[in-house]
Amino acid sequence: MNEQIRLDFQRPERLDFDEAILCARKSDPQLTVIMDRVLAHGARCLMTRLEPDVFARMAPTYRERLDYDPVSRTAYLNWTPPAELELPRIAVVSAGSSDMPQAAEVTRTLTYLGAATKQFIDVGVAGLWRLLESVDELRTFPVIVAVAGMDGALPSVLGGLVPGVIICLPTSTGYGVSNGGETALHAALASCAPGLAVVNIDNGYGAACAAFRALNMIRRAAAAPNG
Amino acid sequence: MNEQIRLDFQRPERLDFDEAILCARKSDPQLTVIMDRVLAHGARCLMTRLEPDVFARMAPTYRERLDYDPVSRTAYLNWTPPAELELPRIAVVSAGSSDMPQAAEVTRTLTYLGAATKQFIDVGVAGLWRLLESVDELRTFPVIVAVAGMDGALPSVLGGLVPGVIICLPTSTGYGVSNGGETALHAALASCAPGLAVVNIDNGYGAACAAFRALNMIRRAAAAPNG
Amino acid sequence: MNEQIRLDFQRPERLDFDEAILCARKSDPQLTVIMDRVLAHGARCLMTRLEPDVFARMAPTYRERLDYDPVSRTAYLNWTPPAELELPRIAVVSAGSSDMPQAAEVTRTLTYLGAATKQFIDVGVAGLWRLLESVDELRTFPVIVAVAGMDGALPSVLGGLVPGVIICLPTSTGYGVSNGGETALHAALASCAPGLAVVNIDNGYGAACAAFRALNMIRRAAAAPNG
Amino acid sequence: MNEQIRLDFQRPERLDFDEAILCARKSDPQLTVIMDRVLAHGARCLMTRLEPDVFARMAPTYRERLDYDPVSRTAYLNWTPPAELELPRIAVVSAGSSDMPQAAEVTRTLTYLGAATKQFIDVGVAGLWRLLESVDELRTFPVIVAVAGMDGALPSVLGGLVPGVIICLPTSTGYGVSNGGETALHAALASCAPGLAVVNIDNGYGAACAAFRALNMIRRAAAAPNG
Amino acid sequence: MNEQIRLDFQRPERLDFDEAILCARKSDPQLTVIMDRVLAHGARCLMTRLEPDVFARMAPTYRERLDYDPVSRTAYLNWTPPAELELPRIAVVSAGSSDMPQAAEVTRTLTYLGAATKQFIDVGVAGLWRLLESVDELRTFPVIVAVAGMDGALPSVLGGLVPGVIICLPTSTGYGVSNGGETALHAALASCAPGLAVVNIDNGYGAACAAFRALNMIRRAAAAPNG
Amino acid sequence: MNEQIRLDFQRPERLDFDEAILCARKSDPQLTVIMDRVLAHGARCLMTRLEPDVFARMAPTYRERLDYDPVSRTAYLNWTPPAELELPRIAVVSAGSSDMPQAAEVTRTLTYLGAATKQFIDVGVAGLWRLLESVDELRTFPVIVAVAGMDGALPSVLGGLVPGVIICLPTSTGYGVSNGGETALHAALASCAPGLAVVNIDNGYGAACAAFRALNMIRRAAAAPNG
Amino acid sequence: MNEQIRLDFQRPERLDFDEAILCARKSDPQLTVIMDRVLAHGARCLMTRLEPDVFARMAPTYRERLDYDPVSRTAYLNWTPPAELELPRIAVVSAGSSDMPQAAEVTRTLTYLGAATKQFIDVGVAGLWRLLESVDELRTFPVIVAVAGMDGALPSVLGGLVPGVIICLPTSTGYGVSNGGETALHAALASCAPGLAVVNIDNGYGAACAAFRALNMIRRAAAAPNG
Amino acid sequence: MNEQIRLDFQRPERLDFDEAILCARKSDPQLTVIMDRVLAHGARCLMTRLEPDVFARMAPTYRERLDYDPVSRTAYLNWTPPAELELPRIAVVSAGSSDMPQAAEVTRTLTYLGAATKQFIDVGVAGLWRLLESVDELRTFPVIVAVAGMDGALPSVLGGLVPGVIICLPTSTGYGVSNGGETALHAALASCAPGLAVVNIDNGYGAACAAFRALNMIRRAAAAPNG
Repeated sequence: MNEQIRLDFQRPERLDFDEAILCARKSDPQLTVIMDRVLAHGARCLMTRLEPDVFARMAPTYRERLDYDPVSRTAYLNWTPPAELELPRIAVVSAGSSDMPQAAEVTRTLTYLGAATKQFIDVGVAGLWRLLESVDELRTFPVIVAVAGMDGALPSVLGGLVPGVIICLPTSTGYGVSNGGETALHAALASCAPGLAVVNIDNGYGAACAAFRALNMIRRAAAAPNG
Repeated sequence: MNEQIRLDFQRPERLDFDEAILCARKSDPQLTVIMDRVLAHGARCLMTRLEPDVFARMAPTYRERLDYDPVSRTAYLNWTPPAELELPRIAVVSAGSSDMPQAAEVTRTLTYLGAATKQFIDVGVAGLWRLLESVDELRTFPVIVAVAGMDGALPSVLGGLVPGVIICLPTSTGYGVSNGGETALHAALASCAPGLAVVNIDNGYGAACAAFRALNMIRRAAAAPNG
Repeated sequence: MNEQIRLDFQRPERLDFDEAILCARKSDPQLTVIMDRVLAHGARCLMTRLEPDVFARMAPTYRERLDYDPVSRTAYLNWTPPAELELPRIAVVSAGSSDMPQAAEVTRTLTYLGAATKQFIDVGVAGLWRLLESVDELRTFPVIVAVAGMDGALPSVLGGLVPGVIICLPTSTGYGVSNGGETALHAALASCAPGLAVVNIDNGYGAACAAFRALNMIRRAAAAPNG
Repeated sequence: MNEQIRLDFQRPERLDFDEAILCARKSDPQLTVIMDRVLAHGARCLMTRLEPDVFARMAPTYRERLDYDPVSRTAYLNWTPPAELELPRIAVVSAGSSDMPQAAEVTRTLTYLGAATKQFIDVGVAGLWRLLESVDELRTFPVIVAVAGMDGALPSVLGGLVPGVIICLPTSTGYGVSNGGETALHAALASCAPGLAVVNIDNGYGAACAAFRALNMIRRAAAAPNG
Repeated sequence: MNEQIRLDFQRPERLDFDEAILCARKSDPQLTVIMDRVLAHGARCLMTRLEPDVFARMAPTYRERLDYDPVSRTAYLNWTPPAELELPRIAVVSAGSSDMPQAAEVTRTLTYLGAATKQFIDVGVAGLWRLLESVDELRTFPVIVAVAGMDGALPSVLGGLVPGVIICLPTSTGYGVSNGGETALHAALASCAPGLAVVNIDNGYGAACAAFRALNMIRRAAAAPNG
Repeated sequence: MNEQIRLDFQRPERLDFDEAILCARKSDPQLTVIMDRVLAHGARCLMTRLEPDVFARMAPTYRERLDYDPVSRTAYLNWTPPAELELPRIAVVSAGSSDMPQAAEVTRTLTYLGAATKQFIDVGVAGLWRLLESVDELRTFPVIVAVAGMDGALPSVLGGLVPGVIICLPTSTGYGVSNGGETALHAALASCAPGLAVVNIDNGYGAACAAFRALNMIRRAAAAPNG
Repeated sequence: MNEQIRLDFQRPERLDFDEAILCARKSDPQLTVIMDRVLAHGARCLMTRLEPDVFARMAPTYRERLDYDPVSRTAYLNWTPPAELELPRIAVVSAGSSDMPQAAEVTRTLTYLGAATKQFIDVGVAGLWRLLESVDELRTFPVIVAVAGMDGALPSVLGGLVPGVIICLPTSTGYGVSNGGETALHAALASCAPGLAVVNIDNGYGAACAAFRALNMIRRAAAAPNG
Repeated sequence: MNEQIRLDFQRPERLDFDEAILCARKSDPQLTVIMDRVLAHGARCLMTRLEPDVFARMAPTYRERLDYDPVSRTAYLNWTPPAELELPRIAVVSAGSSDMPQAAEVTRTLTYLGAATKQFIDVGVAGLWRLLESVDELRTFPVIVAVAGMDGALPSVLGGLVPGVIICLPTSTGYGVSNGGETALHAALASCAPGLAVVNIDNGYGAACAAFRALNMIRRAAAAPNG
């Protein structure tokens, strides 16, 4: 049935960013068909949830066209990031080093979309001083992605301290009642800090897109201040 | 213990918007203490989840200082909205007329924060043409709040059609498996449309704050395009 | 205890279709006993959830009597589909290529029951135009099976556009809140589009049977219009 | 905001049946606006979940235009059922007398859509003989709606005995683990009887629409057997 | 810490049956310590949830003292069942062949406790006639264990037909909403058939003990009719 | 539709006990129809979940035929208990005085079925000595109903101390995580004490029937020791 | 059955504190029996969850023996607090004024047990500075009760800042995903701050007892430093 | 990104105990970076959830600096326990031998923090006498950690018998409704025994820290009785 797969090459015209390929639950032949179609189109593509063993099984002809990162499990097909990026306008803040894969998925996706990021790591609330040291700098970012698992208290604290757009990315880090990320998700949604916006558990790609939507509108406003 | 209540009058300096009073689960004497303190400060205040019967029990001296709206269950203390507002930059889109209280809470909160809105009502996906007729106009808004209960399919459809920031507000409308709003919440979080950001069920105040954070950053960019 | 297994060879008389064998959680010896019994009866049989490794472990004498399809994980025992089928009266619509295994189980089951299908793939609502292009054709089918995971918004949109019987098949595609398919299931059940009927998550066999029940009654009516 | 309510008068052209008004969670003024609009259109309308106290509060000018039934909590606006209906083609089967409100909502909705029904009551599986006595008759119906709360075992037994389309309507009857109807819902979905299709808990309107979709296609086939 | 394990050799005096060893989650050394202690005591012992690979790893000196059955995953340590048992007084009824492991655990445990059983297999309600054929015989058993997964409708039907003690054993057979056995558990608990008693999902050992408690009291009454 | 209600007067022949009427969710007219039918039959009947206000609304002609108990919310229609009962063979043990309504429903139902009970109250495990004082007496009962809410630890302790049949009745007493009785239900099901059998939360009627089934089989054995 | 209620007057000998009466779900006559028994014993007693309307219905002879507080819904029977208490060793910290009832239940219970408290109110993390201003003082308390609803982030922040025993009391404040307090409960349990101990939602009495157990051991150590 | 990992070496000054490294979900390179940093600092460190296969993959240079225990899955980096410890003041009580890994994590963590423990094993309530034999000794401990899975009844019984601080550690032992430990968690939270404090499922490290916080305050009181 693979010949029936239809890609959405018109998405950039509608949304200002292009479709990514979620590799999870796709078979090897399905991925091959998709990559062939992208290459035939002369297009580029972001692939997410590409597990190292799936990448390793690909034919060399594909692997050499892919810029693969095993931490974030993302690949750029037919594209490499430029050496120079603009000054970062999006901060990616994470509570612990266990949240690195999700934080890296955010950063890699934003790089692909053309938005530079700065990472703030290990600023969880159990060691509050590490977060407080960074508050003044964080207040200068118009968009922040807050990555947190377990009890998910980081977004609540951030939300009372900085004025920018805050996208909360709960992660599935943890065990017992926090297993699967539901506690972090619910804590971000129930936060008494006003104006937090939340994406699905472990959805680094979605958090990056939400952050990009905001940055995109900010850029438009800067380009056409009276628009 | 009411004398111990401490309000956060410094919030605007940190966040660019002031604290609202969530009236649910507060006793009548607690509300009186809070209103007295705001008035003594010469400040204004937004009150949310203020039920009609609680409002009706208040002394006239308070009621005449309040601009109360029973649909959204909100009140402005010591403030009335100006006759003229700027052109609306935030669209509030709702799937059905059962979602009106939440949509109204979004609008009333944004009015209080100084942001004009335009409402799009009854554009649920079961009557898709009503939504499609509005798409071109919706694409001109930098920020959209999508209000939806039951199956919550509206945000997914919107997310594939418009480029702006989309804040999803799931509502508790419904019964059976959609009772309490969890299905609408989960559908928004699990959407395959990229870049949707979600707030808690029925949290119209929070959706408005999230939308305002984005608008605020957009305004800053327009005011200082090179900042 | 295997000698105690009792098959239901009278089901076709009651229901107009025969019993299938759910292979999941059955041991290799149990499957052998069942296949022997079917063959001894001179009967045919549909096997579902037959994993590739279980199939690979079977003795050649069984494998050559089986028409096996690894995508849908189904096998026809002692039967092969005819080259020619009637014009398709059942449409199988799916939101994404990750839902292919379930869509294929629907199609293979209906083929076994003697009902031709037409597939519509990658018509998820995040790329709405792909769906809208097919609406006129979909309106000509008396029965539609809508396969969707993640946010499950496809059935809601379809339900407002086409008059036929709609059987919703939620799939376990997804992660975070959509993990396991519960969100897609609940969204289909809670849909504001009227008259959707739903089967269990990943139950392609059940969706096909429900579609066949409707088609069967339609055929009877066409055969005996005054009956 | 009520002037913004938009009704979907074109639905019959798309779906062959018209929009119903779900009265739950609508305010009295909202209902008045809707009824005015329907009457101004010279149209008729089905109203569901119309509680007796809401009906009692309506002005006489509305009440006399309404055919109201307190058991099913439905009303026909600007329409009364004809004295004569065709022979019933849809059976409504319910397990206990506690399920009567939902069964009545199915029947009243189907009457409105122009489909006659026959009721089979108190045929729950704990008194199996009452069900078995009716099996031969039930096998003559092309469409059956099975209403069941608590353990929801009725649909499973029916599904093994009759060949017609079976729409399962789980109800919220019960307490403890069956409180809210989730057990009845899950039992219908998980049934080992093949081809059951299920609607949301207590969704009598939806069950009726699903049954009508099937009947409608059957009628079309009878009218145009070669179509 | 293994030297600290304390067995409960006095249980038979209190309960009329002895402690079984739940092997799941015990390490190989823990199992060895326990078996040594039983053997040193000259006692016998029932081991449950003993996976085939754990059994295979044991030293021959243990394996030859064990009567192991891989279907039920049980072993008798230092005991073999007698050739002759009394007439069976306990019926073990199961809905499908996927429930065989649990049914076998019931039977093996009751054999160990000295109670003979008769098995009734594949009598699920989707093929109701197979169950009805056995009803007269089932009515002669004072105690019945009803094993059922998926929708768990078997106990409800049985409960309306037979007067004996009914112990319901829900199983984790199934997928989607029935995954893990919760639907079968809830259906048994919520049954409208009166007087069903239920044990934990997949707890064949517990179902056997509950059945044995009843049989034991019946035997005592027969032995001392005026006691 | 009330004329369609069908009672199951043949149940005693099948099960040795008659149908009870669950009054919850039945309308006043439905209850009247049922009582009329029972009285016309010259039969008696047990009514459960009959709330005091429903009883108070009944016509005097019904109330004087009813033996009503507001604690258990049960009534005997057309029957009064005899002055003398046999020696109690069933113990009803409850953890706290908050569980009295459920314990009373058990006792009243068993009285109706002709089985005498003895109550043991306030023997929860937090005051373990009160339970230990009663253990020797409890060991003489062939059947015990253990009523417990909150953490539901009572059945686990009992199950290790007494040999009789133990029917666990979890109650909805409690708040927070024990709200609704799920914790007590799960604790009884997951107990490491062997052979506990459990009924639905607050299902005093069902616990009584399960206890009666066991007592009935014991009586039969005593009456026909060689049967 | 009320004469069967048995109080546990020996609890102080075992636990160093006496039994409290949970008034929820007890009938008025049950409460009267209990109070009579306490008074006949010359004892005192703490009553919790005593709703204002239940208190108002009591006979004056009881009300004048009760020291009742409607905020915490507690009463002291036959006891009034002394004018002077020791210096407070237990801090009661709460996130918002909506949590006052639970905080008051903690304080009133500890007063009854003879332990003085100091309250810290409105120190939620969304206004972090109010909490940070109190940290130095909080570090001097050996025991802290942290009361928090909604997202429950307060305990996580506290746990990284102070060395004392921290008892977390989640509250049912909130709506949507935080409705019922589960999010606050799970966040406290999943906290990455080490050594937090948690009690049931809204269980102010239990939090006070846990705090008292710690204080009691601390006092014993101070009284017998070498014990 | 590993160079960005920041450890919290100041924690002992704030909390009197140092940060542990949760190894679950950390990659091998992340663990190496962390160990290097600790060693470079001349510090020691506790590592938890260190699976045997992860330990086995480490370079010998690390393994020889680690004191590893596979039962508790903990390691001491750059530290070995002293031969002599003080008299144990903390009791670790567990219900079954399946709970040993969690009990061992408690003990190993407390050893690292400098607190001696005494273990009480196999004292579950199903064999109540084993627990009662130890009560007098348990009453002498100021702090008790109660480890229990399945139905979690042990803490409730303990809580009514001993006056010390009780930290409940629910474990994920079990299957069916107790799978994952939620039943044991909820039973501890809902216990009617007063003053139990609870930590997350399987969180042996957290239980140890909570116990240490109490012991630490007790030691301070003994050292400065008038402080």
